[in-house]
Amino acid sequence: MRILGIDPGYAIVGFGVIDKVGNGYKVVDFGVITTPQEMDMPERLKTIYTELCEIINRYHPEVCGIEDLYFTNNAKTAIKVGQARGVCVLACAMKDIDTYSYTPLQVKQALVGYGRAEKAQVQAMVTSMLRLKEIPKPDDAADALAIAITHGNSAEYLDKLKHAK
Amino acid sequence: MRILGIDPGYAIVGFGVIDKVGNGYKVVDFGVITTPQEMDMPERLKTIYTELCEIINRYHPEVCGIEDLYFTNNAKTAIKVGQARGVCVLACAMKDIDTYSYTPLQVKQALVGYGRAEKAQVQAMVTSMLRLKEIPKPDDAADALAIAITHGNSAEYLDKLKHAK
Repeated sequence: MRILGIDPGYAIVGFGVIDKVGNGYKVVDFGVITTPQEMDMPERLKTIYTELCEIINRYHPEVCGIEDLYFTNNAKTAIKVGQARGVCVLACAMKDIDTYSYTPLQVKQALVGYGRAEKAQVQAMVTSMLRLKEIPKPDDAADALAIAITHGNSAEYLDKLKHAK
Repeated sequence: MRILGIDPGYAIVGFGVIDKVGNGYKVVDFGVITTPQEMDMPERLKTIYTELCEIINRYHPEVCGIEDLYFTNNAKTAIKVGQARGVCVLACAMKDIDTYSYTPLQVKQALVGYGRAEKAQVQAMVTSMLRLKEIPKPDDAADALAIAITHGNSAEYLDKLKHAK
């Protein structure tokens, strides 16, 4: 199963593509889509959508895991990041790729088994599980890989549940 | 100048297409794109994007006015509506149609000349300015037409400013 992980944002979108092989994972590619601050929002959304479509066309992921956004008080930022998340979800939906949302808590629990884990612990687990020589950079790409692994683990869990029935 | 007005949302997107002819406006079409509650969000975003692209392809607007979202405290709703707004802005950007954002306050000021105007006053002005026999229904379509007129008036103002220089 090939999984695309996305860490959405309007300035930086992290992406990570992994293959689930047996009980392990193999990294295919990871990186970021960036848009400059001086670019207006419609152009930023177009850039994110177009580049993400290219990534999907290149790697043909079967499923997508994307971070669920959470904001406690800044609704203005929430709308801006929400717009960027919307075009990421759309890029997958237009290719009929199912999208699953995971909160940062779920990602930490899936990788470290502990919802209050530090970012460094999550990154160390990503590095280890994907047998990488160093921590993937930048952070947004590492986060995207962590989300992809979270879906891989969840899918396995869901599959076991299905078989158990 | 043909203007597309959009009142974004994930359950209902209002749209209105008008032509600015001389100092007046002529309505081309208006209506809503709706997505059912039981549809999951990726599918809702895909429906909104696809149907809005069809409207753009049918009417070839030169410019788009879209409502600026504002939320004071509900960030969860802000993200959901933000996602829908993002795919609306994207639909225009993919066709190289410039998008201008207007707050509800700006719409009320542009149509009624008073930022705290009632919805009924705005709707009455839309009906009168477009020489319609009755108030456009539903409200989201009337709002979209109001946003289109707001851009038409603003564009005229901006144009006068440009000529004055």
